[in-house]
Amino acid sequence: MKVALVGTGLVGRAWGICFARGGHDVVYFNRNRERAEAAIAYAGEILPDLEQMDLLNGFTASQVRSRLQPAERLEDALAGAHYVQESLPEDASLKRDIFLEMEAAVDPDCVLASSTSGIVASAFTRDLKHRERCVIAHPLNPPFVIPAVDLVPSPWTSNTVLDWTAEFLRGCGQAPIHMKKEDPGFLTIRLQGAIYHEAFRLVAEGFADPEDVDICIRDGLGLRWSFIGPFETADLNAPGGIREFVGLFGDSYRDLYPKDGPIAWAGALLDEVEQARRSKLAMSDHPARQLWRDRRLVSLVAHKRAQARRDCDNDG
Amino acid sequence: MKVALVGTGLVGRAWGICFARGGHDVVYFNRNRERAEAAIAYAGEILPDLEQMDLLNGFTASQVRSRLQPAERLEDALAGAHYVQESLPEDASLKRDIFLEMEAAVDPDCVLASSTSGIVASAFTRDLKHRERCVIAHPLNPPFVIPAVDLVPSPWTSNTVLDWTAEFLRGCGQAPIHMKKEDPGFLTIRLQGAIYHEAFRLVAEGFADPEDVDICIRDGLGLRWSFIGPFETADLNAPGGIREFVGLFGDSYRDLYPKDGPIAWAGALLDEVEQARRSKLAMSDHPARQLWRDRRLVSLVAHKRAQARRDCDNDG
Repeated sequence: MKVALVGTGLVGRAWGICFARGGHDVVYFNRNRERAEAAIAYAGEILPDLEQMDLLNGFTASQVRSRLQPAERLEDALAGAHYVQESLPEDASLKRDIFLEMEAAVDPDCVLASSTSGIVASAFTRDLKHRERCVIAHPLNPPFVIPAVDLVPSPWTSNTVLDWTAEFLRGCGQAPIHMKKEDPGFLTIRLQGAIYHEAFRLVAEGFADPEDVDICIRDGLGLRWSFIGPFETADLNAPGGIREFVGLFGDSYRDLYPKDGPIAWAGALLDEVEQARRSKLAMSDHPARQLWRDRRLVSLVAHKRAQARRDCDNDG
Repeated sequence: MKVALVGTGLVGRAWGICFARGGHDVVYFNRNRERAEAAIAYAGEILPDLEQMDLLNGFTASQVRSRLQPAERLEDALAGAHYVQESLPEDASLKRDIFLEMEAAVDPDCVLASSTSGIVASAFTRDLKHRERCVIAHPLNPPFVIPAVDLVPSPWTSNTVLDWTAEFLRGCGQAPIHMKKEDPGFLTIRLQGAIYHEAFRLVAEGFADPEDVDICIRDGLGLRWSFIGPFETADLNAPGGIREFVGLFGDSYRDLYPKDGPIAWAGALLDEVEQARRSKLAMSDHPARQLWRDRRLVSLVAHKRAQARRDCDNDG
């Protein structure tokens, strides 16, 4: 397939590598042609390292590099494209203009995606003729290393487009996060914000120095979170799964947020969460998964020690 | 030094391994003597694996094993101990009784620590003669794998005891998190609670399924957090450091919490956080640290892929 990048800065140039390792031809467009070429040169420089770290879906650096090319004009970049990734500055009117311009140049079934980290798609796709094909695909940086991508619909994004885009991104080595309805707080932003908010609050209220907050995450909670999410963490923290966990610890967690109108971890919400967990992990497999988690933790700590030793060797 | 465990369940038995790998003699006490012996037998079973994973501070499994012994009576366990770790059930009156009993049997300068995950030390150490030696050392499980330990004072815990305990724990391979004043929400609980709270809220408000919340952490945010904390993450996310980060993104993060009386990331609070970061990382070293972070991310992803392949091989 043909993929077009509109905007080739830090975000766009990293996306290019993902799409090319997915097996697609990637055309780089920037109003300043030199910047498109610089983005391709950047890929050329780092692809050998990514090949060595097995981050190219089994392709070689030169195979991936051969799929990248610049385009002189926007129309050339978009002609015949199946997927376009827009990565322009965070400005709704700028995005509105470029989406109208892009629509005029692409085939009717081409998906138009934006890298925006916080502008909702309805703010810049409303006036398109085929606005059902517009979606937000917001990466963490750099996406060729970090798989997670916020996939956020507008009210008029079609399910076909959402499903197709999720599958397309998975083929590029990404892990799409489906947001079910539009909101400027994408999941990566809201969950990161929850940690930032609590981190600043702990310092503001005199409970801890910033470094101790960082220790708590990097030498504590962050270890598990690098391979299991919070719901699986809770599910594995009680022999009876997440419902038992909530029974044991739910009240004390909720009591931490008296002013914040705490959500009751109960009723239909708890049913939904428990059902989601059981569809991923039958209770009969629960004890084995706890052992798996413990082994993964031990391996991760061994990995971190090896990395720390390498850091020391490099310093010496 | 001599260390005594009072309570040898899941938490106590894991602590025993930490103290013994710190080079100390560890005496296990349980009212039911068989449980103390079972806890030592458990250590004997897993120590060879821990040695192989380099989790014993350079000691062999048999060296560590040779330092563990059960005691018949509480007095025997406590006589001449330098440090006592209490890990009884979460019941303030039970802890009040055992702390009085322990004080009667130990030397005057022995440190008395509790593993409680949420009862403040003032609730069970008030009536001790030398209550300044009491402190909370709350581990994540298991502490011989996860280094972080909440170190929480009561209003009367002495700084000498706090500093000594932090140093003692570091010698056992732990990473103490200094809490500056007493509160039932220890740092590990509050930061974990912040994520649980937001995770349940995202599901309750219909924004995402539980599995997508988990993807967001395990394939996204959790990668960095396994080796850098939130303040360092923010500091490295802008070329000018955390003050520039707050200028660029602070408003949009705060806007996520309209009902929660958001903390202003500004003024003296921002000064304090910036100063803390600069004491850890001079701006002249900032670009090199960003490269280090990127290399660590790539290595971590390679590690995760290798682990996933091993899982597949085991399944096949």
